[in-house]
Amino acid sequence: MPHKIYDKVAGNGLISRRYLLSIGATGIGAVASSTVLGADAGINFEIPSWSRTPGPGASAYGAPSRHTQHFQRTHGAPNATYPGGGSSRSPLQHLQGSITPNSLHFERHHAGIPDIDPSGHHLVINGLVRQPLVFNYEDLLKYEMISRVYFLECAGNSGALLRGGNEDGTAQSLHGLVSCAEWTGIPLSALLDEAGVLPEAKWLAAVGADAASMGRSIPIDKAIDDVIIALFQNGEPVMPGQGFPMRLFVPGWEGNISVKWLTQIKLTREAAQFRDETSKYSDTLHDRSSYQFTFPMGTKSLITSPSGQMSLDRPGIYQVTGVAWSGSGSIRRVEVSADGGQTWADAAIQGLQLDKALTRFTIPWAWDGGSAVLQSRAIDSLGNVQPTRDAILAERGNISTYHNHCIQSWSVNSFGEVSNVYV
Amino acid sequence: MPHKIYDKVAGNGLISRRYLLSIGATGIGAVASSTVLGADAGINFEIPSWSRTPGPGASAYGAPSRHTQHFQRTHGAPNATYPGGGSSRSPLQHLQGSITPNSLHFERHHAGIPDIDPSGHHLVINGLVRQPLVFNYEDLLKYEMISRVYFLECAGNSGALLRGGNEDGTAQSLHGLVSCAEWTGIPLSALLDEAGVLPEAKWLAAVGADAASMGRSIPIDKAIDDVIIALFQNGEPVMPGQGFPMRLFVPGWEGNISVKWLTQIKLTREAAQFRDETSKYSDTLHDRSSYQFTFPMGTKSLITSPSGQMSLDRPGIYQVTGVAWSGSGSIRRVEVSADGGQTWADAAIQGLQLDKALTRFTIPWAWDGGSAVLQSRAIDSLGNVQPTRDAILAERGNISTYHNHCIQSWSVNSFGEVSNVYV
Repeated sequence: MPHKIYDKVAGNGLISRRYLLSIGATGIGAVASSTVLGADAGINFEIPSWSRTPGPGASAYGAPSRHTQHFQRTHGAPNATYPGGGSSRSPLQHLQGSITPNSLHFERHHAGIPDIDPSGHHLVINGLVRQPLVFNYEDLLKYEMISRVYFLECAGNSGALLRGGNEDGTAQSLHGLVSCAEWTGIPLSALLDEAGVLPEAKWLAAVGADAASMGRSIPIDKAIDDVIIALFQNGEPVMPGQGFPMRLFVPGWEGNISVKWLTQIKLTREAAQFRDETSKYSDTLHDRSSYQFTFPMGTKSLITSPSGQMSLDRPGIYQVTGVAWSGSGSIRRVEVSADGGQTWADAAIQGLQLDKALTRFTIPWAWDGGSAVLQSRAIDSLGNVQPTRDAILAERGNISTYHNHCIQSWSVNSFGEVSNVYV
Repeated sequence: MPHKIYDKVAGNGLISRRYLLSIGATGIGAVASSTVLGADAGINFEIPSWSRTPGPGASAYGAPSRHTQHFQRTHGAPNATYPGGGSSRSPLQHLQGSITPNSLHFERHHAGIPDIDPSGHHLVINGLVRQPLVFNYEDLLKYEMISRVYFLECAGNSGALLRGGNEDGTAQSLHGLVSCAEWTGIPLSALLDEAGVLPEAKWLAAVGADAASMGRSIPIDKAIDDVIIALFQNGEPVMPGQGFPMRLFVPGWEGNISVKWLTQIKLTREAAQFRDETSKYSDTLHDRSSYQFTFPMGTKSLITSPSGQMSLDRPGIYQVTGVAWSGSGSIRRVEVSADGGQTWADAAIQGLQLDKALTRFTIPWAWDGGSAVLQSRAIDSLGNVQPTRDAILAERGNISTYHNHCIQSWSVNSFGEVSNVYV
């Protein structure tokens, strides 16, 4: 329980970082043996079993504790009419920092995960080029690589929130289609230089080697700006679910365009009109007209703790923390409100603050036991401000639910129960 | 095969980054079906099996491809006289970027890996404090956390190189006791503030809950500067081999002092004289006197590719790449030599360039088929320059092999075979 003075920085309990949490216990009853360095009055525990006997030695590939193995991605059951289709969502409410571990990075598959033998995989660059080229995996490993920390977000992330409902949702179930990693690979521009792009080439068509032949079109200006052929993720080869042996990585843009299991790049005059840029991933508006292409992901943030399905034990100080990102730049600032958007205070950025990467924010909140609505609002380096849900509904409606980057609200009731709410 | 003009930047084949590698093949013989977007003359492959049938769907916790599962840590066999003792080494020659994935982060254990139930684990802060305190795991999760990318290196890393031999070594076997991750946790200073450190406290003694009761002493100035109680690594809870549920993390200092499975911090007047700071981890010099404490790890770099046990296929351009780090700051510059240190050229920094973190460098090298000696030399933000092996031997000798941060040399012979060498 807090017993110190602290300064209020916004309504309904948001406080400054100058405080002592002071929940370390004093005077716990003695049990048995003393601690290693001798006991103080009242601090005296039995030496636990794991301190009495040596444990097993090192392993070749480490694994999480059995006590945290419930921190897993959620994913749908197999579906006979859409084999291998579906997604897995990152357990955002259990994660910290900016980096997502590879095994918990979200995934979206359109025909499951191909088991590719890299020695039988090729990357073809053809179409409007001076010289069509074929690369194998070993060839590509010889090129100069760059490493960048980037978020990846599915265009459909948070989509259901535009329709309403989802009172029982968690950060994972509502927003778990976003993650962040250090991606390492070859600048696409280096390979295009070798093939020699012809002046009439304005787009490229990227195709994956999965059974869906997932394909997407990318404007040539973006392709030569910052797109990479990613071979490594957080240091190790990309996992099969992320596109092993290689994927396209298109920084800041909707996840679907970062084609996994990349096998072909064809330079073209026009967009290829792939299935996944006509029947899907296009934004239909109120009047039934559509934006075919909405590439950059919006300026966005969400509070990951507290999250829906959590309960606050008792009134006191809690750290409100979450992640923010923008497909157009870095995060300049994140504001948090505890009164449903009436007043706001700046959260602290507590870690990496990089271009097109998840940025961790945190602010202490003194919950008084009453009702509250927690929100976060991101501002990026271009000055873009995360919009309200009402603003997005007014602009686009909810026929399409792609590209929802609105402010999200967690309600806390007087029992401390946290749930998704619309305000 | 390279066929372009390029500029030399140092002796024996180091070249500028303005070149075309041009190893993409043209005119590969047609096999059967066409590629998805239609074939160009000579680019025509049979559609592989993995593109014909949907694969399995998403999983709860991802795993590497079976084609890269030989990228593993190496670790010794169980030892009956030292149960649970030993280490596992990161496969540096197979990794890229700056981040090490958690499952491949090096480990060093003194009594194996305890299987700690966090609900039965405590962190005690006692000794010269106004009020001794006890924290449980759930309590600590409520504190404000910070995230920082830091390297961790065992004091004994690269140690055997001071003695000589090791011609067959790889980057992993010789230098694999260094890794890098985003660590998230509570600034130790926040918990010390709550306990109230008394003015006479000059050191703290940190003890782990493993069966070795691993303990180390830390000067109070460092403890309140940047030490954290780390609960998360690359976003997820630290794995058991890294100290679950919590470890001390002492940025830039020898790995052993970042006590895993942390259970007690006692504030003291003097260093505690633990076993692992008297019989081990002290540097004995030529004249048999010893430095008891050598805390910061030196300014260091190493080339991870080429690595010992690799073979270069044929003359041509290769990317020389590696990692650099300093326990005293960030990496300002890395130089590479291909002629055993006679001439040097600046490598490119290709990714994160952070304080006390692994920094990836790369430079192209045109191997002419002759013999060569590849070396790298790091310069940090304080101007510290990585020393030669001779300089370290002259200063300290090799009675102790801790804290070896000397320049390391890979020899390439006319068959393209790479091996460790002393020059």
